[in-house]
Amino acid sequence: MNQPEYTLQQIAEAIDAQLIGDPNRIVRGIQTLEKAGPSDLAFLSNPLYQAQLDNAQAAAVILSPSDAERCSVDALVMDNPYLGYAQVSHWFDRKPESTGGVHTSAIVDPTADVNPSAAIGPNAVIGANTTIEKDVVIGANTVVEADCRIGSGSQLAANVSVYHESIIGERVIIHSAAVIGADGFGFAPNRQQWVKIAQIGRVVIGDDVEIGAGTTIDRGALGDTCIADGVKLDNQIQVAHNVEIGENTAIAGCVAIAGSTKIGRRCAIAGASNIVGHLTIADDVQVMANTLVTKSISSPGVYASGTGMMPHRKWKRNVVRFRQLDQLASRLSVLEKQFKNDE
Amino acid sequence: MNQPEYTLQQIAEAIDAQLIGDPNRIVRGIQTLEKAGPSDLAFLSNPLYQAQLDNAQAAAVILSPSDAERCSVDALVMDNPYLGYAQVSHWFDRKPESTGGVHTSAIVDPTADVNPSAAIGPNAVIGANTTIEKDVVIGANTVVEADCRIGSGSQLAANVSVYHESIIGERVIIHSAAVIGADGFGFAPNRQQWVKIAQIGRVVIGDDVEIGAGTTIDRGALGDTCIADGVKLDNQIQVAHNVEIGENTAIAGCVAIAGSTKIGRRCAIAGASNIVGHLTIADDVQVMANTLVTKSISSPGVYASGTGMMPHRKWKRNVVRFRQLDQLASRLSVLEKQFKNDE
Amino acid sequence: MNQPEYTLQQIAEAIDAQLIGDPNRIVRGIQTLEKAGPSDLAFLSNPLYQAQLDNAQAAAVILSPSDAERCSVDALVMDNPYLGYAQVSHWFDRKPESTGGVHTSAIVDPTADVNPSAAIGPNAVIGANTTIEKDVVIGANTVVEADCRIGSGSQLAANVSVYHESIIGERVIIHSAAVIGADGFGFAPNRQQWVKIAQIGRVVIGDDVEIGAGTTIDRGALGDTCIADGVKLDNQIQVAHNVEIGENTAIAGCVAIAGSTKIGRRCAIAGASNIVGHLTIADDVQVMANTLVTKSISSPGVYASGTGMMPHRKWKRNVVRFRQLDQLASRLSVLEKQFKNDE
Repeated sequence: MNQPEYTLQQIAEAIDAQLIGDPNRIVRGIQTLEKAGPSDLAFLSNPLYQAQLDNAQAAAVILSPSDAERCSVDALVMDNPYLGYAQVSHWFDRKPESTGGVHTSAIVDPTADVNPSAAIGPNAVIGANTTIEKDVVIGANTVVEADCRIGSGSQLAANVSVYHESIIGERVIIHSAAVIGADGFGFAPNRQQWVKIAQIGRVVIGDDVEIGAGTTIDRGALGDTCIADGVKLDNQIQVAHNVEIGENTAIAGCVAIAGSTKIGRRCAIAGASNIVGHLTIADDVQVMANTLVTKSISSPGVYASGTGMMPHRKWKRNVVRFRQLDQLASRLSVLEKQFKNDE
Repeated sequence: MNQPEYTLQQIAEAIDAQLIGDPNRIVRGIQTLEKAGPSDLAFLSNPLYQAQLDNAQAAAVILSPSDAERCSVDALVMDNPYLGYAQVSHWFDRKPESTGGVHTSAIVDPTADVNPSAAIGPNAVIGANTTIEKDVVIGANTVVEADCRIGSGSQLAANVSVYHESIIGERVIIHSAAVIGADGFGFAPNRQQWVKIAQIGRVVIGDDVEIGAGTTIDRGALGDTCIADGVKLDNQIQVAHNVEIGENTAIAGCVAIAGSTKIGRRCAIAGASNIVGHLTIADDVQVMANTLVTKSISSPGVYASGTGMMPHRKWKRNVVRFRQLDQLASRLSVLEKQFKNDE
Repeated sequence: MNQPEYTLQQIAEAIDAQLIGDPNRIVRGIQTLEKAGPSDLAFLSNPLYQAQLDNAQAAAVILSPSDAERCSVDALVMDNPYLGYAQVSHWFDRKPESTGGVHTSAIVDPTADVNPSAAIGPNAVIGANTTIEKDVVIGANTVVEADCRIGSGSQLAANVSVYHESIIGERVIIHSAAVIGADGFGFAPNRQQWVKIAQIGRVVIGDDVEIGAGTTIDRGALGDTCIADGVKLDNQIQVAHNVEIGENTAIAGCVAIAGSTKIGRRCAIAGASNIVGHLTIADDVQVMANTLVTKSISSPGVYASGTGMMPHRKWKRNVVRFRQLDQLASRLSVLEKQFKNDE
């Protein structure tokens, strides 16, 4: 693959930055400010790394107006340098482009409607009555079952599984080993056994959603499981049946969301958190790492649970005390009363 | 696909309910009581939703005798309406039926024994000496390695992986990206390195088991990892080597069970719990969400750990105190003694 | 498959143990000390099981010098009997050997460089410019994208996904549904939406690494995600972009490691722990099950967090007190001061 080459002029125009420096300088890569060499573009958005400007070797640095003066190399000045980095990062992506067309080894049902501009990878399987819109890329060994719709520009990586009737919007990215539309976990107890409840609902995913590797989104029991536009889901997240996730909410890895919970818009749920079922989480809620959410949250804000790490010896003693906590509190109350009576 | 149509008479007979209403009324779908329209069947099992009976638009409602009077539309009366819903829900499942036979693109080892009634999907791979019994459905791109048995009526979805020598019972459902029989995590330390221990045991799964998407069940180190009849496992559960799970136990998503732990019958383990290794959990134990189980449990009952969520500002102060908890308890004891001495 | 047969002489030589007994005795299997029959080899390394020696039925037992006297059957004596077991366990592994060669159904890009001794399984897909070195085994339906290197002797099970540019060392084992090199979770906020940051770095995995089923290792944002030689990762672990894991560290199932965290050498991280981003963990750190690591750890030692399980009724009261913990501590301080003033 040929190395990309861009001038600072091209980059400044693309990200709408003010260029202080040589418009014809050539950039061939993108790197962190610390590691960038003389043909690399770099960026500075976290004030923690300001001092790295002093020894910067980069061809140019995307940075904010307040950092521009300290910059000894060429500068691309804008209010949100992290956004500039995000926008231009794609120019340096070496991900091979798919060439389009249906691979000869793919199995496409004759009733499927595959747009000629779509790329269906080796050994991929497309089911009956499924619609694959324009510019969609289906990775190798990925299975899209019957009666699905994959919206234009969406990209499914290798080994993705999409169950029947799943509706996926436009420009959605789904990573490997993700599973969309498996049965929700629903059973009726009967004489100490479990009777399966058919999971008849669907998964409906909006536009511009990203779904990480190994993430599972179950189909609804009766209604649908709904992921709104702009939602970003990291790896190994479990989304149970009939969950609804609001627009532009971002959820980090290994979060588990139990059935029928509704999460608002623009929420940020940190990794390994666990949200129990049938809750409602307001818009703009932030949940810290590894939080157990057992109640609905009605106001925006930051929430947490858990206890931080400590040396094991100390932890063992504290955990014993945690088991006695209610008792300790009662003893304190008794003492307070006795003390008061004595005075 | 044609819409299903059933009379209330047919439904009443199938679920053994008493029909109060028109036996010839036609039902074409099933919905929640809230959303059901005039051709939908609905059900009421949770008393929280009783009030929805007043505005019910459903063709008929499956409900318990105590709710029958309040019902303004046709009623199907039975003691366990949730069970009635579970039983009849499958009539309205739009999941495409597999047509049977081995797809031309499937790779079946000549020594495998595939029942003619079984359906082997596109690009599925069946290994040497494996037995696929009658009415089994193997999904697209699923791999069943050598020396396995898949019992009659079992259904493996797309992209499932079953390692060699796995024994799977009858009517088992396994969802996409599940992995049965990968190596357990076993190593002997030697000079600050790890020497792999061959994982020679098998996975043995009983009848009527369901295994969720992305769930992994490791093969035994020497003996077998055993999942008994009727066990229901949700998505992304990790079952380590030599674990045993007793009959009709249900485990929710993202639970991790470490090696050699034995879980009893009819247990209910809530989501994101973590059970450490070499424990024994009694029958009929219920574990709440996100619990860390570090000791064996010898009596039925409900168990929990963890600390609930709270606003982050408040949490930060409480967590500091948790680190001092043993110290706080000692200070309380000192004060109690001083106070007693003073009196 | 024929049953293996070995003499005690052969075994003693292979694991460098002193044989006390009949060098020509035949061993046909390996089992736990408790279950071993007269043609099975057994081992004793955990002192808890010493009493099982008294009724041992095994052909021979691998054990340490201090246990040799108690052993009533033939003994293979060595200082580290668990190591001896690990070494000889592979002789009894019934895992079918791959026969080598490219299966006719595999799709190998003409520009890929596949060593003739490698085995490429049914329906596997190998991308452009990828190098598959000698004796590599690629499982059925596994996908290795473009520009990768799979080092000699490595084994990828069925349904593994390896994204472009991933570099995998020698003798690496990767289990089913693992995903190597998916995009890290990186987005820049812009007007309440998320702009994707291209993930341009790679995953670089050293030699003798094992990666469990369903484990996901994301590619770096700019630099690489690095897994050093001898690292052992259990199932369903999430390794985020730009994480570095040091040599011979072992991590148990369901651990989540957030972005850019560096974990030292020879660490042992127990199951279901969660390590937040941008931390540095020293060499030789041990983390207990289900620990939330929120700060860097600079000294070797054992660390923990969380609260142990207890009966739900008791837990409910203690959790309420946990929410009041800072308050309780303040009340204790007040009381201490009052008491002091009174004296």
